Amino acid sequence: MSVIYDRVALIGLGLIAGSMAHAMRRAGLAGEIVGTARSAETRAVAAEINLCDRITETAAEAVAGADLVVLAVPVGAMAAVAAEVAPHLAPGATVTDVGSVKREIIEAVGPHLPDAVHFVPGHPLAGTEHSGPRSGFAELFDNRYTLLTPVEGTDPGATAKLRALWEGCGALVEEMDAEHHDLVLAVTSHTPHLIAYTMVGVADDLRRVTDSEVIKYSAAGFRDFTRIAASDPTMWRDVFLSNKEATLEILGRFTEELFALQRAIRTGDGDHLHDYFTRTRAIRRGIIEAGQDTDAPNFGREPAKKDGPS
Amino acid sequence: MSVIYDRVALIGLGLIAGSMAHAMRRAGLAGEIVGTARSAETRAVAAEINLCDRITETAAEAVAGADLVVLAVPVGAMAAVAAEVAPHLAPGATVTDVGSVKREIIEAVGPHLPDAVHFVPGHPLAGTEHSGPRSGFAELFDNRYTLLTPVEGTDPGATAKLRALWEGCGALVEEMDAEHHDLVLAVTSHTPHLIAYTMVGVADDLRRVTDSEVIKYSAAGFRDFTRIAASDPTMWRDVFLSNKEATLEILGRFTEELFALQRAIRTGDGDHLHDYFTRTRAIRRGIIEAGQDTDAPNFGREPAKKDGPS
Ligand SMILES: NC(=O)c1ccc[n+]([C@@H]2O[C@H](COP(=O)([O-])OP(=O)(O)OC[C@H]3O[C@@H](n4cnc5c(N)ncnc54)[C@H](OP(=O)(O)O)[C@@H]3O)[C@@H](O)[C@H]2O)c1
Ligand SMILES: NC(=O)c1ccc[n+]([C@@H]2O[C@H](COP(=O)([O-])OP(=O)(O)OC[C@H]3O[C@@H](n4cnc5c(N)ncnc54)[C@H](OP(=O)(O)O)[C@@H]3O)[C@@H](O)[C@H]2O)c1
Repeated sequence: MSVIYDRVALIGLGLIAGSMAHAMRRAGLAGEIVGTARSAETRAVAAEINLCDRITETAAEAVAGADLVVLAVPVGAMAAVAAEVAPHLAPGATVTDVGSVKREIIEAVGPHLPDAVHFVPGHPLAGTEHSGPRSGFAELFDNRYTLLTPVEGTDPGATAKLRALWEGCGALVEEMDAEHHDLVLAVTSHTPHLIAYTMVGVADDLRRVTDSEVIKYSAAGFRDFTRIAASDPTMWRDVFLSNKEATLEILGRFTEELFALQRAIRTGDGDHLHDYFTRTRAIRRGIIEAGQDTDAPNFGREPAKKDGPS
Repeated sequence: MSVIYDRVALIGLGLIAGSMAHAMRRAGLAGEIVGTARSAETRAVAAEINLCDRITETAAEAVAGADLVVLAVPVGAMAAVAAEVAPHLAPGATVTDVGSVKREIIEAVGPHLPDAVHFVPGHPLAGTEHSGPRSGFAELFDNRYTLLTPVEGTDPGATAKLRALWEGCGALVEEMDAEHHDLVLAVTSHTPHLIAYTMVGVADDLRRVTDSEVIKYSAAGFRDFTRIAASDPTMWRDVFLSNKEATLEILGRFTEELFALQRAIRTGDGDHLHDYFTRTRAIRRGIIEAGQDTDAPNFGREPAKKDGPS
């Protein structure tokens, strides 16, 4: 593939920015990749593993002369970073972000940006529970969706170019309205994360009762929850605080339905339970057909190591 | 390995019994494997794929002369199956089960069994969301725990022999009290399943609002939930009805904590959220160290297929 942007500046060098650097290099999409991060430690690691072509100490230096600037910091830090880089942006540059929430970022970042730059907010629907400059890998976005939520009046050319970059990184790209994005993600990602965190917290409380058995005998179900609940606390705090309305709306529906199932258990209403559990299977089939997960019998996981404690 | 039981009778030929058949054959643990299932269809499939050495039409025929009888039907069907086979059990035989709940099964099955047989309840902590005679595979139990919950007065020799069988099937075996089993499993498996079913149900309701986007953009978190919520409805109905007390107890704690997090979101209490999310990470580390899951960056999953709809 050929170069899409001559100079890409990555602000923040964690899982997402790092994976973008790997993926852009894999396909040769950027003339130069410049990166920066808040801490000297992260910048040093990034330099050591050669994550970017150039590491700068400040965000201001990083964005100088860049035709694409990617804000890849926690949602709550986007506004401050935007304010910091704004005076140094090249006219005609595109600014994008990778935050997991869109409406609040648009409201927080947009006002800082000069008229001469294009703002095209984005969100790659891909991640792991790992973070930091060493956690990225080129394949992260392959066949996963990246959603762009351009605001009214955004230059279609700027959006098309950013789309081409994400497609070059392996992603399937779609555009949608920011509010709609936030609702869909509240259902598919934010509320499930909150629930997983809660369940793992309950288990943690019970360790006094059950000793370490909750860990030792962790079965399918809980094991998946613990992976979700190992995600970065700062990232998720910011997600919930900034997608407050949609998350609370979905949580309300969730507790309503949970109470109905709880009552069915209490009263021994097996038919209600059976009907409910039958209905939910169809969604799984849809996801497998959409190619967004595998149907492998062992979930495609590696077998655990024989030498684990017994 | 050498033969542990001369004749093993499998009552029910689904995921668990099928996997036991494959695993026993892999290690040569049974002189003869006899199987039976409720429906002619399942028996025909089992015969077609040569799952057992012999398939019988009735459970009574299957257990005749068997020195190990494995009840591998849904929890709610255990009592009826036990009553059916009881008059035909060979004196000195061991009866075990693989049900996901233990106290209720002991109470429901125990009274039917003659004094001359040993009853050693068991539960392999291994499963997938698939079911039926074609879903089993020999590796299912490898490095996973199987818990035995022998009742007071059980012959230690009978327990030791069953332990050897499970170890031969690749499992790590532990013994514990049935009540304790039911509490630990309520935390690590039963309540997480109920929660996953609920969240997927909520998403299903919202499909009218979000069209098929909930499926299309299903992200980590929700995607894991859908796999859990694709498990067999009959099995899970029975689990919740028969581990009612422990499940309701854990659900009560869960809603308490969820409400506290919900309030923190509503009031913007980021510190509460951050502290909570930090605490839950430790549990994940414990599970990986215990060898019960992988830390692979892509969760060890196969990449999705490129030809999925976009
Ligand atoms: N992880 C996922 O699953 C995922 C998926 C899709 C989108 N996202 C979004 O992607 C963004 C980055 O996430 P990530 O997973 O890449 O995070 P990460 O691995 O934790 O990296 C975050 C980066 O942001 C920097 N940073 C943190 N706080 C900052 C602050 N207050 N001011 C300036 N810089 C700060 C960090 O610098 P130091 O290293 O110097 O601390 C680090 O370089 C977030 O907005 C998140 O919502 C994440
Ligand atoms: N799946 C898991 O993840 C898992 C894990 C650990 C333990 N368990 C336990 O293992 C047991 C079996 O589960 P499985 O996953 O192997 O189930 P499965 O694949 O659905 O197979 C169930 C078997 O039981 C038979 N059966 C169903 N209802 C019956 C009834 N009322 N009377 C007599 N036979 C009946 C079925 O016969 P037909 O095929 O003829 O209908 C089938 O052969 C359950 O007690 C479950 O709690 C399951």
